Amino acid sequence: MLVCDRIVRRDPSPAAEGAVRLRVALLGYGQVGSAVARLAARSGAGPGAAVDIIGALVRSTASRSACCPLTTEAATLVESGPDVLVEALGGAEPARQIVLSALERGIPVVSANKTLIATHADELLAAAERGGTTLRYEAAVIAGVPFLGTLGRRPYAGACRRIEAVLNGTTNFILSELEAGAPDFATALADAQRRGYAEPNPAKDVSGADAAEKLVVLLRHLGGLNATVSDIPTSGIGGITRPDLVSARDFGGTLKPVAFADWSDGCATAFVGPAFVPATHPLSTLHGADNGIRVYSEHLPPVLFAGAGAGPDVTAATILDDVIEATEATSSANHSASRPAFASPDRRDRDCRPQAARRTSWFVRLESKDPLPAAEIADLFASYGVWVHRTTDWSRRTALPTTWLLTHPCAGTSAHAALSALSSATGCIASRWPSLESGR
Amino acid sequence: MLVCDRIVRRDPSPAAEGAVRLRVALLGYGQVGSAVARLAARSGAGPGAAVDIIGALVRSTASRSACCPLTTEAATLVESGPDVLVEALGGAEPARQIVLSALERGIPVVSANKTLIATHADELLAAAERGGTTLRYEAAVIAGVPFLGTLGRRPYAGACRRIEAVLNGTTNFILSELEAGAPDFATALADAQRRGYAEPNPAKDVSGADAAEKLVVLLRHLGGLNATVSDIPTSGIGGITRPDLVSARDFGGTLKPVAFADWSDGCATAFVGPAFVPATHPLSTLHGADNGIRVYSEHLPPVLFAGAGAGPDVTAATILDDVIEATEATSSANHSASRPAFASPDRRDRDCRPQAARRTSWFVRLESKDPLPAAEIADLFASYGVWVHRTTDWSRRTALPTTWLLTHPCAGTSAHAALSALSSATGCIASRWPSLESGR
Repeated sequence: MLVCDRIVRRDPSPAAEGAVRLRVALLGYGQVGSAVARLAARSGAGPGAAVDIIGALVRSTASRSACCPLTTEAATLVESGPDVLVEALGGAEPARQIVLSALERGIPVVSANKTLIATHADELLAAAERGGTTLRYEAAVIAGVPFLGTLGRRPYAGACRRIEAVLNGTTNFILSELEAGAPDFATALADAQRRGYAEPNPAKDVSGADAAEKLVVLLRHLGGLNATVSDIPTSGIGGITRPDLVSARDFGGTLKPVAFADWSDGCATAFVGPAFVPATHPLSTLHGADNGIRVYSEHLPPVLFAGAGAGPDVTAATILDDVIEATEATSSANHSASRPAFASPDRRDRDCRPQAARRTSWFVRLESKDPLPAAEIADLFASYGVWVHRTTDWSRRTALPTTWLLTHPCAGTSAHAALSALSSATGCIASRWPSLESGR
Repeated sequence: MLVCDRIVRRDPSPAAEGAVRLRVALLGYGQVGSAVARLAARSGAGPGAAVDIIGALVRSTASRSACCPLTTEAATLVESGPDVLVEALGGAEPARQIVLSALERGIPVVSANKTLIATHADELLAAAERGGTTLRYEAAVIAGVPFLGTLGRRPYAGACRRIEAVLNGTTNFILSELEAGAPDFATALADAQRRGYAEPNPAKDVSGADAAEKLVVLLRHLGGLNATVSDIPTSGIGGITRPDLVSARDFGGTLKPVAFADWSDGCATAFVGPAFVPATHPLSTLHGADNGIRVYSEHLPPVLFAGAGAGPDVTAATILDDVIEATEATSSANHSASRPAFASPDRRDRDCRPQAARRTSWFVRLESKDPLPAAEIADLFASYGVWVHRTTDWSRRTALPTTWLLTHPCAGTSAHAALSALSSATGCIASRWPSLESGR
């Protein structure tokens, strides 16, 4: 570890001299909006460009202090002609109406609002095209890691066919805590709330709804696939216990809150929920509140992007990068044809194969009044074509005698049939979660 | 794992209809050049744009078959006015001369040539600025993972202060094999050569010279720092043994071929060479020939980019993405002021602190004729202010009695003094490698 005293620093950026100044209007002055204003003020002329916040839309200007003028009139803000409009309201309305009017006037818009993009991307991008401008939303998914814009503008890297991701920091933190020794879900959740990783009402994170919205954004952006949140089979992490994680480690892996989609064979398969992730898979190494995505493209071996998923300051930095990119992209809007992410009208894909065709390993938990002999479970499973790979028995650590097992890859219908038969025969309660393939 | 039959596929890309056609000239038709031509031909009108290879520069046109016209005249190729020139010659000359003349004529250039960029980036980027065009080199570092362009155009994410990376697949593969059970370096190297991960002459990879060139490119691109390969303290992986890797695992980590640079305190520190990487650090999970970089910026928590580092097809896909980006970037060249990566004249940084100030843990190997008592080593080290964290003794597995230890963080000068004193007192052979900090 040596100092390189012959390495010389260059001028950090020419922006400081002939500085580009951008006039930015904010929709919303909550945690994210105010973080954008603070970061812009603190950054002065750099990095990149000087950003002047010319005003922010709020519900009420009473008893608010802010480092920019506040208004309750959206129209006034849009008509003041900002170089870029930053949408930090959250939710679909009134964000949608205001963003539409800005895009139609040719004002570039930057949004961190996954709900807005998941529900209205088509309409908004059509408006951007009419207005000859752009809509950017890098902070809507894994806010601290730039990858959406990169893959949108690079058609070879962006020719995705499968994504495996951890898109929610709250649930990753809770499962990491359970693995590290937290005794139960409630303790881990309380810890997440204490550290600011979980909202006072954590329902949207814990249920998987937050990750499902982000997956909808990714399906559209990376796959050109139209889905709604209700299309995504989603399960929450509420049922996961510390013994589940200990057993997963026994099997050489862990449980992670996964968002998965594969459309390599003309048929889209997707889910959001806890999944077994082998230790050889890079998502298994995302600890605490970290997020990450593994992108499988036609032309490149899998690429991993990982880092912080949320937080006001993280989101603000990504929004300001989008502001700078938005002003550059606008001047080359004529090239948008080469961006498959912003593609045109829908066409229903009819080559959709049934679920039975897709094979995966399953992580299974069986709770019963009396211990279940492993050999008998394996025999019953085998009669449904499901081969048990590994079994572990932690009955002494749980109230009911409990067995965990990991199957070899099999069709979901076979796993379902085998578990139903076992439940009928023994009265056991069976739970199952899918497994990702080894990452190697 | 359920099929979402309500997810509908959108038209993949409008490029297929009003297809953008790009005329591309190739410098070189070796492994990379021919892979670019094949991928362009196979891809037709998409993804992105149709790329027509209008000609390729070769040393001799005799007995060559190619899917495009071959020429030995660089001037003819440049004067034919391609939309983009792709440089796939390797080495500094004649690549530099031809690229210069293309940039000065306003022709965008895409290069995967780390040697060219490491040695002539300033001159080439100045020519690009005069020509009002761009030079892109995403494939020069971690060819299969797009991150250079992203960080170059996003000044907040790109405000880097430290990078920790695995930039060479050959050496990562060899150390991974040693860890997995290969008995010695020669066996692991032979395996790498058999699988095509190592050249017949692997000297540039094994010595660290390849990674040092890439680090020079990164220092300039991400830090605005000017360095040459000779400025980077570089050590090879040739001395690493399987017992070293077993001992590293004992200490809760592994040895990886690391490229490191930190310029957070106004002073650039850098090295290339084997380093101890704790299991909690994401670089520890890069297996086989994978590459990756962890980027620490001022405004975001660390971001990890990881994937394939090399290979003709990987490089070709990234080059074609650069070709498409280059034609877009050219039309917005007026905004290049906001790209700190392409900054202006040098200014020597005089606020450079001495090496002694930087503290790190050290992974140490001690070989001696007679076993060294751990308590005496620890006492001697302590008298130099170096605290031994862990010790392991694998003497029976090596020819000479051997001790490994991991120190607590200390100044490099202290570690050096302690090891010198120990060698003088006992006649032992001491080797040491730095450690990265825990990644959490």
